[in-house]
Amino acid sequence: MEKRIKEMMTRFIEKPRLKNPILIEGLPGVGNVGKLAAEHLIDEIGAKKFAEIYSTDFPPQVFVNPDGTTKMVKNELYYWKDKDKDLIILTGDYQGISPKGQYHLVDDILDIVEELGTKMIFTLGGYGIGEEIENPRVTGAATDVKLVKEMRKYGVIFKNEPGGGIVGASGLLLGMGKLRGMRGVCLMGETSGYIVDPNSARAVIKTLAEILKIKVDLSKLETKAKEIDQIAKRIREMETIPKKGGEELRYIG
Amino acid sequence: MEKRIKEMMTRFIEKPRLKNPILIEGLPGVGNVGKLAAEHLIDEIGAKKFAEIYSTDFPPQVFVNPDGTTKMVKNELYYWKDKDKDLIILTGDYQGISPKGQYHLVDDILDIVEELGTKMIFTLGGYGIGEEIENPRVTGAATDVKLVKEMRKYGVIFKNEPGGGIVGASGLLLGMGKLRGMRGVCLMGETSGYIVDPNSARAVIKTLAEILKIKVDLSKLETKAKEIDQIAKRIREMETIPKKGGEELRYIG
Amino acid sequence: MEKRIKEMMTRFIEKPRLKNPILIEGLPGVGNVGKLAAEHLIDEIGAKKFAEIYSTDFPPQVFVNPDGTTKMVKNELYYWKDKDKDLIILTGDYQGISPKGQYHLVDDILDIVEELGTKMIFTLGGYGIGEEIENPRVTGAATDVKLVKEMRKYGVIFKNEPGGGIVGASGLLLGMGKLRGMRGVCLMGETSGYIVDPNSARAVIKTLAEILKIKVDLSKLETKAKEIDQIAKRIREMETIPKKGGEELRYIG
Amino acid sequence: MEKRIKEMMTRFIEKPRLKNPILIEGLPGVGNVGKLAAEHLIDEIGAKKFAEIYSTDFPPQVFVNPDGTTKMVKNELYYWKDKDKDLIILTGDYQGISPKGQYHLVDDILDIVEELGTKMIFTLGGYGIGEEIENPRVTGAATDVKLVKEMRKYGVIFKNEPGGGIVGASGLLLGMGKLRGMRGVCLMGETSGYIVDPNSARAVIKTLAEILKIKVDLSKLETKAKEIDQIAKRIREMETIPKKGGEELRYIG
Repeated sequence: MEKRIKEMMTRFIEKPRLKNPILIEGLPGVGNVGKLAAEHLIDEIGAKKFAEIYSTDFPPQVFVNPDGTTKMVKNELYYWKDKDKDLIILTGDYQGISPKGQYHLVDDILDIVEELGTKMIFTLGGYGIGEEIENPRVTGAATDVKLVKEMRKYGVIFKNEPGGGIVGASGLLLGMGKLRGMRGVCLMGETSGYIVDPNSARAVIKTLAEILKIKVDLSKLETKAKEIDQIAKRIREMETIPKKGGEELRYIG
Repeated sequence: MEKRIKEMMTRFIEKPRLKNPILIEGLPGVGNVGKLAAEHLIDEIGAKKFAEIYSTDFPPQVFVNPDGTTKMVKNELYYWKDKDKDLIILTGDYQGISPKGQYHLVDDILDIVEELGTKMIFTLGGYGIGEEIENPRVTGAATDVKLVKEMRKYGVIFKNEPGGGIVGASGLLLGMGKLRGMRGVCLMGETSGYIVDPNSARAVIKTLAEILKIKVDLSKLETKAKEIDQIAKRIREMETIPKKGGEELRYIG
Repeated sequence: MEKRIKEMMTRFIEKPRLKNPILIEGLPGVGNVGKLAAEHLIDEIGAKKFAEIYSTDFPPQVFVNPDGTTKMVKNELYYWKDKDKDLIILTGDYQGISPKGQYHLVDDILDIVEELGTKMIFTLGGYGIGEEIENPRVTGAATDVKLVKEMRKYGVIFKNEPGGGIVGASGLLLGMGKLRGMRGVCLMGETSGYIVDPNSARAVIKTLAEILKIKVDLSKLETKAKEIDQIAKRIREMETIPKKGGEELRYIG
Repeated sequence: MEKRIKEMMTRFIEKPRLKNPILIEGLPGVGNVGKLAAEHLIDEIGAKKFAEIYSTDFPPQVFVNPDGTTKMVKNELYYWKDKDKDLIILTGDYQGISPKGQYHLVDDILDIVEELGTKMIFTLGGYGIGEEIENPRVTGAATDVKLVKEMRKYGVIFKNEPGGGIVGASGLLLGMGKLRGMRGVCLMGETSGYIVDPNSARAVIKTLAEILKIKVDLSKLETKAKEIDQIAKRIREMETIPKKGGEELRYIG
C-alpha cells in the first residue's frame, strides 16, 4: 500500500510542448491583485488549463460550487501559444499555508515549468500602501539590474524602501528561480490593501501586456473596479452616518 | 531498531471481504452531528469493528474510561453486510489536528477502503446556521451533478452560497476520493452550531437510511434530542433571570 | 554527508543487561510532580544513568550550569538492579513540544525499553484540582481492569470523571505501550496545579514504593515540601496586604 | 523529477582548504548583537564568502535591495586565513523560524564546518538585562570548565543565574557541537534588549579579538553606537514631553 498523495500531486490534463514559455504567477495575496490579474489574463487570451496541483500544504477543505458539486482546493497551470514565445499562467485558490509549505510548493512548481523550458518569470501582486489610491502605479523588483533598467522603460517604479521584501510565491519564485538560472520580475500594483482591487489588477495587466507585447482587453476589470468602487462608497457613507442611542452614550457618559 | 508507529498505524481486528462497500464517515465536527449519526448507525444496525487507526496527527493523549482503564485516542472502522451492498462506517475521537494531518489521515483511510472495494462515499456532518432550529433540513454537496440530482429526490437541499466550503474529513474524503475515481455525497444536518445536536443527527440518519434503503430505528436519537432540549431550555432560563447589582448598572448608566 | 541528528538521537553511556525491567516515567508536567518524584527516586536508590536522549522535538536551547558550562536539553534513562526485578527510570528537562513530537519521542523511548525487556510501565504525574490540598491522594489509571483492581489495594483512587484524559508522555506511554503488549499504570498525585509540589510527589513515591516493595527515604521531599509551603504562605500574606496609593485610587476614582 | 531544494541547500562559491578553522557565529538575536559583531568582523578582517545556505526553515520571502533587485533570505559562511589558525564566520538574515528548523539548520551547519576541520566554536550574542547600560560587560558560557577558566582571564563574566539558558543557534551550536567532540564558547554582550546595540557588539568583538589574538578596528562600531545613542536620546526626550489633553485626563478623572 504505497502512499499516493505525497506533499504535492500534479494531475496533468495535457503535457504541452512550448517554446520559451514565460511563467506568469497570480495567486491570492494583498488586495487579491495577482489572482485577479492572472484570471483576467487567462480569460481574455483564452489560455488552456493543462495541470492541476493538489497539496497537503493547502487548507484541508473542498469548495462547494453553485451547482452543489464539490471541488478540491488547488492551484492551476494554463498555457497560451504565441508566435515567438508561449505563456504559462499559474493561479489558484490558495498559497501554501505554512512557511515550509510555501517553499515546497514553489519548488515543485519550478520543477514543472523548468521541465517545460521556462527561463523567465513574471510574478504579479499588490503593494499595500494603507490608503485608497485612484491611479495605482506599478512597482517592481527583479532578479538582476539589467531587468530593473528594462522595466523602468515600461513605467515600472522601483521604490527604494529600507527592509522591503516580497513574501510568498511572488517572492520565492524569483528567489528560487534565480538559483536555477531563471530571470524574473515581480510587478506589484499599488493598492490600499483593505479590499479586493480590480483597478490595481488592471494597472498590472496593462503594464504586463506592454512588456509582453500582447493585446489584452481591460474592459471587464474596469467594470469590476467600478462595482467595487460603488460598494466602497456605500460603506464609507454608512460609516459617517451619525450613530444614535446607547452606543454613543457609552463613550460620552 | 525500525520505527513502528509511523504517521499512522492501522490495527486490523479482521480483514472483511465486502461487496461494493459504501463508506459512511461521521467524525467530530459542527454540533458533533456526524459522529452522533455514525455511532447511532453502528449501534442500530449492529456493525462490527474491524480496524483501529492510530495516528501521530491526533492529540497526544489517552482517555480514561469509567472503569479506570486507559484508551488510546483513535479512529475506528466498522463493517455491515447487507444483501446487495455492504457498509463501512468510519468514526472516532478526533480528526487530524493539523491541516497536513487532515490530508494524511484522509489519504490513509482512502487507501484502506479502496483496497476493500469502496467506490461510493457518504460523509455526515453539521451545517451551522447560528440559531436554534426545530426542524433541521439536510443540506448536501456531491462530487458530480448526477448525484446532486439524485439526492434532491430524497429532500436533500443544495444551498447556493457563495464561497461555501466543507472543512475537514467530510470535505477531503469527497475531494481526494474523486481523484481516485470515487463518487461521494456530504449530508449536513442544519444545526445551531452551539451545542451537541442529536436532533440534527436524527435528520441526517433518516435521510441516509432512505437513500441506502435500510431500516434504522431513530428512537434513541429522539430521546437524546429531548434530553439536550431540556438542558438547553434550563440554560436559556438561567440567562434571562434578571441580574441585579453593579453588572446591569454598568450597561445602563 | 549523512544526517546525524535525526528527529531523535540516543547516546548510550552503557547498555545494561536487565531482568524484567519496569519503566518508571517522571517528566515535567502538572505541579512538576512526576519529575520531582522520578528525580527523588533516582537519588535515593542510587540509580545509574545509562542513556541520554536528544531530540529536535525539544526546545532549541541549552541550559547554563552554575559553573558556566552549557548542557543540551535532553531526557535521561537510569537503571537500578534489584533482586527479582530491575527498574528503568525516565526523566528529563522537557516533553516533546509539538503534538507529533510527543508521539515520536514516546515511540522512540518504547523502542529502547522494549529492547531491554520492559513489559510493565509506571508513569508518574500530577492531578490538578485547582485548590491547595494538604493531604494529596494518589489517583490512577491503568491499561487493564486487573491492574486497576490491584492498584486499589495500595489506596490508589480511580476517579470516574466523564471525559477524563491523560495528556503527554504519562498517557501515551501507557496507550502506545499497550499496543506493544505492555501493561501500565499512571499514578497521579493530587495537586493545586499552581506551584511545584514536592508534597504531592512524596505521596506518589510513597505509593509507588509500596507497590514495588522497595524502600525509599522520603525525608528530602518532606523538607522541600516545607520550604515550598513557607514560600506559598509568604505569597498569600503579600496578596492580602492592603495596597496603598495610586494603584488603588485608579480603580476608585 | 527529483526534489532539489530539500530542507536545506548549500551553494558553495568555493571549497576552502583551512587549518584548524574556528567557527564564529553571529546571527540575528537579542539587540542584534551577534549579527552586528559578525558582520563587523567580516568587514574589518576582509573575510571571504565561500557558501550560501538556503533553507525551508527561513521565512518564505525575498528581500528587495536598494537597486530594485531581489535577494533570497539566506545564511552565509565566510573564511579568513591567519598564520596558525583560520576562521569561518557564519552570519545571515534569519535563524530557523520553527524549533525543529533551528535544530536542523544547526546540524547542517555543523556538518559543513566539521568537514572543513572545525573543532572550536565561538557563538556571539546579546544578553538582555532590561535596562540601558553604558559599559556593557561580556558574559559567557562554555562547553567545559577549562574553557570557562580560560575565558575568565579575558574578563568574560560567568553569571550564576538559576534556570539560565541560551536559545537558538548560539546555544545549539555549542550543545550539538559538543556531541560531535567540538568545544565552544558563547560570548554575550550585555544589552538593554530594546534596540539594536552596536556598543554591545563592540564589547563582544573587543573580547573576541583578544582571545583570538587578532587585530580588529572598532571605530565603525563606535560610530554606529553614537548614532544609535543620538536616536535613543531623542526618543527618550519625546517620551518625557508632557502630554496634554484627553489622554492624561483619562487616567486622572
